[in-house]
Amino acid sequence: MRESELLGHIYERSRDLAAAFGDVIVGPGDDCAVVRTTSGDLLLITTDQLIEGRHYEAGTPIDLIARKAVARSLSDIAAMGGTPSWGLATAALPEGYEHADELFDAMAKWGRHWKCPLVGGDVAVTSGPMVLSVTVIGKPHVNREELPGCPPVLRSGAEIGDLVYVTGPIGASFESGHHLSFEPRLAEGRLNCDHLATDLHAMIDVSDGLGRDAARIARASGVVVEIDADRVSLRPPATGWNQAFGDGEDYELLFAVSGDAEQTPHTGELIGRCIAPSDAEPPACVVIDPYGKRHRADEMGWDHAG
Amino acid sequence: MRESELLGHIYERSRDLAAAFGDVIVGPGDDCAVVRTTSGDLLLITTDQLIEGRHYEAGTPIDLIARKAVARSLSDIAAMGGTPSWGLATAALPEGYEHADELFDAMAKWGRHWKCPLVGGDVAVTSGPMVLSVTVIGKPHVNREELPGCPPVLRSGAEIGDLVYVTGPIGASFESGHHLSFEPRLAEGRLNCDHLATDLHAMIDVSDGLGRDAARIARASGVVVEIDADRVSLRPPATGWNQAFGDGEDYELLFAVSGDAEQTPHTGELIGRCIAPSDAEPPACVVIDPYGKRHRADEMGWDHAG
Repeated sequence: MRESELLGHIYERSRDLAAAFGDVIVGPGDDCAVVRTTSGDLLLITTDQLIEGRHYEAGTPIDLIARKAVARSLSDIAAMGGTPSWGLATAALPEGYEHADELFDAMAKWGRHWKCPLVGGDVAVTSGPMVLSVTVIGKPHVNREELPGCPPVLRSGAEIGDLVYVTGPIGASFESGHHLSFEPRLAEGRLNCDHLATDLHAMIDVSDGLGRDAARIARASGVVVEIDADRVSLRPPATGWNQAFGDGEDYELLFAVSGDAEQTPHTGELIGRCIAPSDAEPPACVVIDPYGKRHRADEMGWDHAG
Repeated sequence: MRESELLGHIYERSRDLAAAFGDVIVGPGDDCAVVRTTSGDLLLITTDQLIEGRHYEAGTPIDLIARKAVARSLSDIAAMGGTPSWGLATAALPEGYEHADELFDAMAKWGRHWKCPLVGGDVAVTSGPMVLSVTVIGKPHVNREELPGCPPVLRSGAEIGDLVYVTGPIGASFESGHHLSFEPRLAEGRLNCDHLATDLHAMIDVSDGLGRDAARIARASGVVVEIDADRVSLRPPATGWNQAFGDGEDYELLFAVSGDAEQTPHTGELIGRCIAPSDAEPPACVVIDPYGKRHRADEMGWDHAG
């Protein structure tokens, strides 16, 4: 089974969660879940895994493994415009693994670095490769909480006529080492909320490829996200958009902004726009290449469970 | 490295978390972390793993795997006298695994069953055996929140003169299948809070063996937990205390109650007491066998990373 099919199944089965549990505001299907505490505080919750041989190669320095494990989950908080509060980590360690102390210290260090202290966790042994998971709980951007009807920034709020931006270059994350050194775009996510307020319609972090993640905004919002290939900066050594847009692990923020807010300061480069879907072109990501040809880009990029 | 040494290292390094982060009330080292939200709500947070070949055998029905993955984390919430609110799950699935839909449906079902909807998660592929993790966020028992200075029930509050109780039989969890069918003691944890209020001094769930977990209360509280072997009910087919007290995965609650509250209704069988430590007998779990002989029991039971 492909990851995309499994996720589709999970989202479908989870649709009624918010109706069945009144304190669940957003269930599975966005970068973070959103829940409400007894006194009305909104929390963002997300979890992610890091698996040896999938997300990093054997021999990667422990500090970089720990960094990536924490940063991946923080990127999901950034994608909601949020601020991390607390983290938890699990480690399934290979039998005989001798660097558990060092791994823990590095994860704890990176948690503190990003003001997301690791307050709990679990350690166990596996006969397979190392599997780490990091759960992060955060809070939405306060400016948006204070605006009535303005929840955390979801994937589903993009509108026809919106402009589409990305916070940095795309592609070659593995070859360049970016996947181990990226900075979670927490500051950028918050700045966008500050500057754009309700003009910030949708946001996502680009983890599975620009095409695939843009399509997630498109489908959740019921628009076509149209990207001009030659407006997107590529990360060296990437040279061609059709490879780079599927590489994944960019951890940049992709966001849709009201067309009326074009001149408002924010953190991204303009790369495209949201247009109306049609029978011939249902909600999807469409890349316009330098020759003006249109390419459906939904299936580009990582399908982890493939 | 042994799990106990690694955990000691982690707790030691995490000691200053509560001082450094004002919203962290209890960091690593108890059944759950305790944090405070912006408006002052206390949250319990815990995470646990379930690994094929360690926590269940290959061939175990998917429904029981899913049940155990969820129930293990809920048992930690029970140990704080809490109520679960939301869960997140990660799954590292073996390559080619064909039952991901069924596994997800079963985990979601058990989450709803225990009123702990799974609101998010992550799925990826591993070349090793399946690794599941479940994080649960809950709230402490309201009766204790409303009592000034009465935080969630920790491991560290046991006092000299306390009586020690356990909610059910001990031992043979794997042979009997109990480890796949146990009921997380959420109702019992809350009832203890209701009935005992501030007389409930300390509580833990018995996951790594009665001796080892009793020693955790003892060391955290600075007392000797003395257990009368012949007062403890054994789960068939267990016949001898010295094996059963180290078997682990009982998921019963072990708790210490003020000696003044002996007649107050609660959920456990009396199995021992807390006495003063001495130079000859520092804080530890000591089992008194049917012949009156004293046995240090701290090291009995599971040391997962051993």
